[in-house]
Amino acid sequence: MKRVINFNAGPSTLPLSVLEKAQRELVDFRGHGLSIMEASHRSKLYEDVHNGAIEKMRNLYTIPDDYAVLFLQGGASMQFAMVPMNLYRGGVIEYANTGAWSKKAIKEAQIQKCQVQIVAESSESNFDHIPDAHFSDTCDYAHITSNNTIYGTQYKCFPETKAPLVVDASSDIFSYPVEWSKIDLMYAGAQKNAGPSGVTIVIVKKSLIENVSEDVPTMLRYKTHADANSLYNTPPTFGIYMLSLMMEWLEERGGIEAVAQYNEEKAALLYDAIDNSDGFYTGHARRQDRSLMNVTFNIRNKDAELEAKLVAFCEERDMIGLKGHRSVGGLRASIYNAMTIEGVQKLVTAMEDFRKAHS
Amino acid sequence: MKRVINFNAGPSTLPLSVLEKAQRELVDFRGHGLSIMEASHRSKLYEDVHNGAIEKMRNLYTIPDDYAVLFLQGGASMQFAMVPMNLYRGGVIEYANTGAWSKKAIKEAQIQKCQVQIVAESSESNFDHIPDAHFSDTCDYAHITSNNTIYGTQYKCFPETKAPLVVDASSDIFSYPVEWSKIDLMYAGAQKNAGPSGVTIVIVKKSLIENVSEDVPTMLRYKTHADANSLYNTPPTFGIYMLSLMMEWLEERGGIEAVAQYNEEKAALLYDAIDNSDGFYTGHARRQDRSLMNVTFNIRNKDAELEAKLVAFCEERDMIGLKGHRSVGGLRASIYNAMTIEGVQKLVTAMEDFRKAHS
Repeated sequence: MKRVINFNAGPSTLPLSVLEKAQRELVDFRGHGLSIMEASHRSKLYEDVHNGAIEKMRNLYTIPDDYAVLFLQGGASMQFAMVPMNLYRGGVIEYANTGAWSKKAIKEAQIQKCQVQIVAESSESNFDHIPDAHFSDTCDYAHITSNNTIYGTQYKCFPETKAPLVVDASSDIFSYPVEWSKIDLMYAGAQKNAGPSGVTIVIVKKSLIENVSEDVPTMLRYKTHADANSLYNTPPTFGIYMLSLMMEWLEERGGIEAVAQYNEEKAALLYDAIDNSDGFYTGHARRQDRSLMNVTFNIRNKDAELEAKLVAFCEERDMIGLKGHRSVGGLRASIYNAMTIEGVQKLVTAMEDFRKAHS
Repeated sequence: MKRVINFNAGPSTLPLSVLEKAQRELVDFRGHGLSIMEASHRSKLYEDVHNGAIEKMRNLYTIPDDYAVLFLQGGASMQFAMVPMNLYRGGVIEYANTGAWSKKAIKEAQIQKCQVQIVAESSESNFDHIPDAHFSDTCDYAHITSNNTIYGTQYKCFPETKAPLVVDASSDIFSYPVEWSKIDLMYAGAQKNAGPSGVTIVIVKKSLIENVSEDVPTMLRYKTHADANSLYNTPPTFGIYMLSLMMEWLEERGGIEAVAQYNEEKAALLYDAIDNSDGFYTGHARRQDRSLMNVTFNIRNKDAELEAKLVAFCEERDMIGLKGHRSVGGLRASIYNAMTIEGVQKLVTAMEDFRKAHS
């Protein structure tokens, strides 16, 4: 069986053992005579999967009891709208603009006529760093994008604020331990670190979602889903099942701390290859804000022709998904939880071989 | 391998051949060295699946070119909110109330402060029939629920109106040929007739969604998704892949007309068993409005104890999901496209055996 090394930004690589387990169970789920896809969401069979996924998330990520864990749909893009719908109280809301996704989040709050303050911004240097953000303590909420998939930057430490902190963790959820005392709402699409596309994870302090305007549609209220354990209507059952397998896999890997250590090692290999290339490769992000999830780099003088050649060179070695986003150009290696160190090593070798041939 | 006969109302049974194909392809999709779940939604690999699903839907269901085919998320429950957000023009909107799902659709329009008229209603007889609905020609839109999953009733003919007709076809999409000249927007969750949960199908006349208020969040505008071929953000890729396999299967079965004929035969077997039971079984729905998808029935005198015994009796014969919804009690056999005639025959035999033992 062929298996490529998949550096796509999302949907992205999943652990082979998880896919193989899903394959074994696909037609006959654990001897029950049906696929988990065919099970009623009101059946004990499915509810065990659903509640098991939540329990594993709580244990692995040490989510406090006063936080709800929700499975929604629509991706982070839907959260850009749901967050202000549920959390805006008529005051000011503050956003740090650290890239394309932050911008979209800001735009959705503006569409809802919220009073939005952009308190930090790094667009003037093409979002190559995480700007210092001083959020007020009195805003309705403060919003950050913890990892910027396109630009390859990542918060190493969350800003301090007494206001509720909302974190779009779409591209780094479950990749390192977080301090819940600092976070009031975290959201993420599952398709990078936690499963396939089609499941959106929201982890939110329950007290924050109790009061919601009666004008908000039922499906767009966090409270609807929190009160119903994410079973208000039919959830994306197969996606949640895949997420439960991913949580089991994270457990087997030794939990979030072990995975975080592994992620550090993978990223170090790539950043070292860039930094030790005598200027042949240049990283897009400033060193102190480099992402452990998305490594963005160019070739000297942003030589687009040579960059395209490197992408093709890697494809010949069965490495795919390396073309950088058009906003940065160059290459981007997305190395989420499921990317192996062996995969990263192969990429480093290819980068070295290519550099020697073209220096 | 064990295989139960699954009469669940949704998520529900899928064709064994479809599940087996998905299983074969799950780890290594058609020799590409990755799962379709791992493919970028911007890759040709995935786009071929995505566009193939749309094309097959268009061919099978004879969807005219001036209609957009959209893959959304959130199920019919999200459509209850999206329809008025996109189609309400400040006038009156008219709904036929034929059951629990119609009621929810009405409630969401009311939450949005639309002027809602309920022009037909069958609650006084526990929604056992489809009431005549006279929609005005001047309302912003008219809304019906084509099949009522809980009560087992179904429109045999859509109401005539010059206003745009919106059809919630969650439980009978793709089960019979429709006249698009009568329909302006159809929506459905995929998890009954068309695939797993997590994909919502919207088929809508393009001219109807051109003008949308700037206050509507980007993700909740049909136009956003129509303009981007449902790739505005990451779609539920695996669910859409499963839907594409379901469309192939429908083709292999001879298309929608052949499947509709088969569905008639399946339903006739069950309704005959009810009607020829000397009053032991009584159907909930009035004869002229009986659903071909969900067959709802009670045992004489609505004997709940005996009904529970029949459910257990069927489970012993590997038939599951037959317990009726609490609003009707009794039993409900959901016999969507993927239910086989052999499965229905086994249920009929069990009903006969049970009746003989308890008459």
